[in-house]
Amino acid sequence: MKKFINDPADVLAEALRGIQAAHPDLRVDLDDRVIYRGDATRAGKVALVSGGGSGHEPMHGGFVGVGMLDAACAGEVFTSPTPDQMLAATKAVDSGAGVLHIVKNYTGDVLNFEMAAELAAAEGIRVESVVVADDVAVQDSLYTAGRRGVGTTVVLEKIVGAAAEEGADLDAILALAQRVSENGRSMGVALTSCTVPAAGKPTFDLPEDEMEVGVGIHGEPGRRRVPLASAAEIAKLLVDPILADFDATGPAIVLLSGLGGTPLIEQYLMFGEIAPLLERGGVEVKRSLVGDYITSLDMAGIALTVVKADDEMLRLWDAPVVTPGLRWGA
Amino acid sequence: MKKFINDPADVLAEALRGIQAAHPDLRVDLDDRVIYRGDATRAGKVALVSGGGSGHEPMHGGFVGVGMLDAACAGEVFTSPTPDQMLAATKAVDSGAGVLHIVKNYTGDVLNFEMAAELAAAEGIRVESVVVADDVAVQDSLYTAGRRGVGTTVVLEKIVGAAAEEGADLDAILALAQRVSENGRSMGVALTSCTVPAAGKPTFDLPEDEMEVGVGIHGEPGRRRVPLASAAEIAKLLVDPILADFDATGPAIVLLSGLGGTPLIEQYLMFGEIAPLLERGGVEVKRSLVGDYITSLDMAGIALTVVKADDEMLRLWDAPVVTPGLRWGA
Repeated sequence: MKKFINDPADVLAEALRGIQAAHPDLRVDLDDRVIYRGDATRAGKVALVSGGGSGHEPMHGGFVGVGMLDAACAGEVFTSPTPDQMLAATKAVDSGAGVLHIVKNYTGDVLNFEMAAELAAAEGIRVESVVVADDVAVQDSLYTAGRRGVGTTVVLEKIVGAAAEEGADLDAILALAQRVSENGRSMGVALTSCTVPAAGKPTFDLPEDEMEVGVGIHGEPGRRRVPLASAAEIAKLLVDPILADFDATGPAIVLLSGLGGTPLIEQYLMFGEIAPLLERGGVEVKRSLVGDYITSLDMAGIALTVVKADDEMLRLWDAPVVTPGLRWGA
Repeated sequence: MKKFINDPADVLAEALRGIQAAHPDLRVDLDDRVIYRGDATRAGKVALVSGGGSGHEPMHGGFVGVGMLDAACAGEVFTSPTPDQMLAATKAVDSGAGVLHIVKNYTGDVLNFEMAAELAAAEGIRVESVVVADDVAVQDSLYTAGRRGVGTTVVLEKIVGAAAEEGADLDAILALAQRVSENGRSMGVALTSCTVPAAGKPTFDLPEDEMEVGVGIHGEPGRRRVPLASAAEIAKLLVDPILADFDATGPAIVLLSGLGGTPLIEQYLMFGEIAPLLERGGVEVKRSLVGDYITSLDMAGIALTVVKADDEMLRLWDAPVVTPGLRWGA
């Protein structure tokens, strides 16, 4: 295992120190392992809390800031944060207008966020939750009942974050979050495994001439292994299952995320293959993002996310955002 | 070789198509392989042109836009662009106020930009050039007489881009560019080689228990190979040669760039090690960037850049920038 680490047990704690050093406008609670906006939640603003296992950076901590999340709880690598972390974050950011929990559909995340919501409710904080389950690759998986939650989470955090900044109330925020969630679909592919620091070896073996189609962001098995294919063929393997899964015609926000070990030149090359396929399928690519936004440690791979977007969603997408991972317009 | 490509000969052309599809606010000349701002250079604004071999994305094409470059010429992977490309870009963006060529110190880049500048001068365009040679690792190298040019280029393009946007004239722009260049130092380390698509195999062999200290962004040999070390030890191997090379005390802009195959969690962990070492050495880390900004295809590695920055440089660093690779404040 070749990694820039000290003791594998300290990876998360030390990475959080680096985030703190690099982003003085964020507040990093090193004990609770929560990343907060530097400023307190404005009175009347719904607060947004997300979180999950680490190893997917910049998600979620990199999406904390103006126009996106108020706090993100970081679990150990590929491990759910605890209800205590989520409760601490929820209490810290609530300004009285309530809190939305944005949860990716992994069993540990879902259960822990549910418990945190109950504990917060017992303290008089109104909490609603949205669970993102957008990965069309497989039904049920290693850590998940139902579909896994992946890239739509990034788009949702941006859009809902803008609505919260504008002063929408919790009911409206929840409805919007559900609308984004229902309109997003994702599909990924891996050329290599990732290596979890604590494990010290690749999560799975993938021969030099094969790839995993529909891989999960923790290295969960996908739909099938197939021989390594050309970029053009891989683009079809990502686009077709998404278009087969729902009526994707109309305006959309498209995210092509590298999984951590894939250079940007390859990501752009893939986007050049994918965009025309989407357009041919009736998707109007109104906005796009190409880069590492939801990753799987050092995995060489990419994941495509298509979110059908109405005018309100596009407007909120374009609203200012100031976070380490996404920043524009302010 | 596992890559998201079709024919290795088509990587650049196809990646440029992807950049065009992802960034409708840029204009990509697929024949000349030049990436332009979508709008014409404002009359009276000095135009900034950079370029170099591909494989270092987002540099340089990702730094084209408001507040940074007017055009970037893309060579084949790790291959200098031609004088014809540079001349086409120079002519296209000159608005009468002259053009600055921003050149990394690699022999091919330097010679070709010199020729392009002469050809442009013959057509009545005033061109000045700054050559960045900030890599403290080695004197002379595989493709370079003198020091290699690396991360300071990113900082320079941002700062000088802001000055040009404000209306500084070419003499002032050139002086500022030289000031940034002279005040920047870089040092990198690789845990793995990169693989050039056309070669189909790693550029160099690096045993599982060794790393290359002072590696170049094309996989050029560094100072030495040493046993794989901890993050804390690697931080010293990057910081010490920079602090030994010049008086780095005082305010600085610090860039820690992943080289393409290093996940963000490791980059942040390393920044958490590096920032205190710099501060202990008298460097005041006033601004920082952590992420993939100047890469070496899929190389697992990082490079540290320290640019001593006066008040004017910090102010220009903070000025609005709207490019695919760097974006804030507007």
